[in-house]
Amino acid sequence: MTPAYTQLHHTFTRLSRFDHLSAIAGWDSAAMMSPQSSQARSEAMAELDLLRHQILTDARVGEWFKDVGHENLNELERANLHEMHRTWHNTVVLPDWLVEARTLAGARCEHAWRTQRPANDWNGFADNLREVVKLARQEAQIRAEAAGTSRYDAMLDLYEPGLRAADLDRIFGDLKTWLPGLLQQVVAKQAQSTPVPLQGPFATERQRALGLQVMQLLGFNFEQGRVDVSTHPFCGGVPQDVRITTRYKDDDFLPALLGIIHETGHARYEQNRPGEWLSQPMGRARSMGVHESQSLLFEMQLARSPAFLRVLHPWVIEQFGQQPALQLDNFIALNQRVKPGHIRVDADEVSYPLHVILRYEIERALIEGEIEVDDIPTLWADKMQQYLGIDTRGDYRNGCMQDIHWTDGSFGYFPTYTLGAMYAAQLFQAARNAVPGLDDAIAAGNLQSLSGWLKENVWQHGSRFSTADLITRATGETLNPAFFRKHLEARYL
Amino acid sequence: MTPAYTQLHHTFTRLSRFDHLSAIAGWDSAAMMSPQSSQARSEAMAELDLLRHQILTDARVGEWFKDVGHENLNELERANLHEMHRTWHNTVVLPDWLVEARTLAGARCEHAWRTQRPANDWNGFADNLREVVKLARQEAQIRAEAAGTSRYDAMLDLYEPGLRAADLDRIFGDLKTWLPGLLQQVVAKQAQSTPVPLQGPFATERQRALGLQVMQLLGFNFEQGRVDVSTHPFCGGVPQDVRITTRYKDDDFLPALLGIIHETGHARYEQNRPGEWLSQPMGRARSMGVHESQSLLFEMQLARSPAFLRVLHPWVIEQFGQQPALQLDNFIALNQRVKPGHIRVDADEVSYPLHVILRYEIERALIEGEIEVDDIPTLWADKMQQYLGIDTRGDYRNGCMQDIHWTDGSFGYFPTYTLGAMYAAQLFQAARNAVPGLDDAIAAGNLQSLSGWLKENVWQHGSRFSTADLITRATGETLNPAFFRKHLEARYL
Repeated sequence: MTPAYTQLHHTFTRLSRFDHLSAIAGWDSAAMMSPQSSQARSEAMAELDLLRHQILTDARVGEWFKDVGHENLNELERANLHEMHRTWHNTVVLPDWLVEARTLAGARCEHAWRTQRPANDWNGFADNLREVVKLARQEAQIRAEAAGTSRYDAMLDLYEPGLRAADLDRIFGDLKTWLPGLLQQVVAKQAQSTPVPLQGPFATERQRALGLQVMQLLGFNFEQGRVDVSTHPFCGGVPQDVRITTRYKDDDFLPALLGIIHETGHARYEQNRPGEWLSQPMGRARSMGVHESQSLLFEMQLARSPAFLRVLHPWVIEQFGQQPALQLDNFIALNQRVKPGHIRVDADEVSYPLHVILRYEIERALIEGEIEVDDIPTLWADKMQQYLGIDTRGDYRNGCMQDIHWTDGSFGYFPTYTLGAMYAAQLFQAARNAVPGLDDAIAAGNLQSLSGWLKENVWQHGSRFSTADLITRATGETLNPAFFRKHLEARYL
Repeated sequence: MTPAYTQLHHTFTRLSRFDHLSAIAGWDSAAMMSPQSSQARSEAMAELDLLRHQILTDARVGEWFKDVGHENLNELERANLHEMHRTWHNTVVLPDWLVEARTLAGARCEHAWRTQRPANDWNGFADNLREVVKLARQEAQIRAEAAGTSRYDAMLDLYEPGLRAADLDRIFGDLKTWLPGLLQQVVAKQAQSTPVPLQGPFATERQRALGLQVMQLLGFNFEQGRVDVSTHPFCGGVPQDVRITTRYKDDDFLPALLGIIHETGHARYEQNRPGEWLSQPMGRARSMGVHESQSLLFEMQLARSPAFLRVLHPWVIEQFGQQPALQLDNFIALNQRVKPGHIRVDADEVSYPLHVILRYEIERALIEGEIEVDDIPTLWADKMQQYLGIDTRGDYRNGCMQDIHWTDGSFGYFPTYTLGAMYAAQLFQAARNAVPGLDDAIAAGNLQSLSGWLKENVWQHGSRFSTADLITRATGETLNPAFFRKHLEARYL
């Protein structure tokens, strides 16, 4: 009889092949597809999702998970089994009716949100969101009962396995004691001199050429991926062929440039996942938080540092010519500008965690049943005032309606952005400690030793270790917000 | 109980969704994919093929085809049922072992061919081809027994349903009586004045701009498709989002331009298939021959006509400036150059059918067991001499090893190219008869009445009618090679 582990391995290999098609079609939808095809594409993707669901919920898979307990597995196989089981459990634990109801309610809410948001129509949005929250609570309840955790913990575990709300309360609690004050200090300091703004236009072709040059510097493997344009930049595709996207603004080249650097961080992680495990869950990136740590390490730790900006500076001049805003000091100041605002995705790295903490506190309370949808606007306005000093009352569009995450019930996702920022600071410091002359190499435009350390300590491991173990092996300790604080203070005070 | 027709409809809808993903991934493989991804892509595509095979060979599908006989269906549903049954029968009639053996042998033969062809290694190629032919004969035998036809007829039916070798013998027999002589006459006539050759380079961006301009003129719907670059140009994607490709040569813009026009012919057919039947077999294009008739109607009947070339001419000058080769008369002569050569895909429209007839005669005899693989080179050389007056002895690379079709066992495909050319001549003449002032409209750069006629008479019908019925309804008679002869004589003598 074929061993159960072999059967499971085969099943997950098959799933990875369908995942490959889903990833390419998903990239195509965002970067290539004609609008007339969107209905047919949605139907095709839904059919594929259904197929993957059917494969995982086949009764034989459950039998194999029972039988595999009696088989001798080596350490890597055990790690793989752990990840296979997590994927399977997270799928089969939900009844089909709930999966379907959740998908429908999420699609309805998101679809309506696309017009409700510009119309600032909170009441209309709230009607749909209530249904999404109701179903998300049911989902969280089922997951929580199976896992023996709280509801919100069970949702969090989908995106950052092993992390609990108690951890976040500790970590974010620490941030809340010093970050709002630090933000005010930085804003006051930067108020003393405003950088000269960029004068466009900046031709798309030159922005693209600069982006390709920077991707090359950062080690993006062009034999194993490409860059295109989409409305919402992302990193997609498959590890053998990673597809990143960006979007170009005529009057400012920095969003596209820093966006490309951000996505290149994700891409290098994807391109360097363990080659012999790509068909298996163990070969996947560890978590959303660890993934974001790689993009933020590239974008925030590295690319906005004066040393790296000095490397970029002559390339920028070469593409766009000289202008007052591109004097070196001004160029650095533009890239380190801190300005609290309404919109999370536009936030600088000092304000950003406060946007996340606000969302974490609201979504946790919402899923635990401590607040209701109708409480969100007031809580949002209070916390924006408290954390960022901004009055957002009545502006739902640029307030609690700005993100897509809650529209389809992705509660538990937001914290991973700030976990990523903190992992990034801690990992970058560990790389500095471990690699002699790292800062000098970066200042000289040599990123190979940094890449080498990241590959050795993060990328090549896939999901072999838990996030806590991965971070501890790489940095000597579990997540410690002190590294992030030190980074912000060193850069901005 | 759900009616059997509804069950079948649902099954084919599901298949069409997987076909959608297969088409997009197939386009991506040719136009976008990084080489490092090709192994993973092949595995994903094979997994999808296997899935589609499993869906069709499910025993319930056979039951539904039995039960559906008792149900009341309207004319369109009956036409759809006919096409569903054809698809299903062509799949289930072959045993799994043969499908697998054929796929493996074809992949092996094609893979080796990629290096054997440049090395002119006929003996190495023949070793693999023998296995391909052996399996193709078994396939043909099984299909023939089920259909009550000859072996070759059964293969032909896969690409041009309803057509028999007896029809081809009559049609091609007619061509053979006059075409070699006509070719010699045209060559002699054109020997009197050789056109001035083009002087490159022609910038890719300008070739692309010209191509887009011509696609627009031809009515390509850019809201429903796009054009990219690939090594071997093709028309792919899905009807809601048709993806054509081309390739640009630095020293000659005509191959890319005429290639784009050719693929636009395919594309307009795809973009105008019946909207409410796109998930069903009846919504598909009628046959390979009819598909080719649309690309050749655009490329040969329309685009190489003096009237149309006069419309193009100023656009060409606008992109590339004036030069001796681009004097109007010379430009027309370049597009109507007839020169018998070794290579089918480079052939003009006068020589082309002779390349096809040669292949038809060899592949028919091969599948019927009248000749063996070892007989191919001598037959090839004899027929090239006889039909085209060219000595190809010993040059396998540019002779019987030049095409990919036989490497994977696609016997029966070649005739559709020349059927397409003949349908094109007949359809174009019918459009002229039916649409008053069509030639004047074309000369004025107005293609809407031609498109309207094609949509009305070909595109919108999908597979509702048999090819013979479709052509008869559109032109008043079944395929008549006289139209093709008249076209060639009028243009070239």
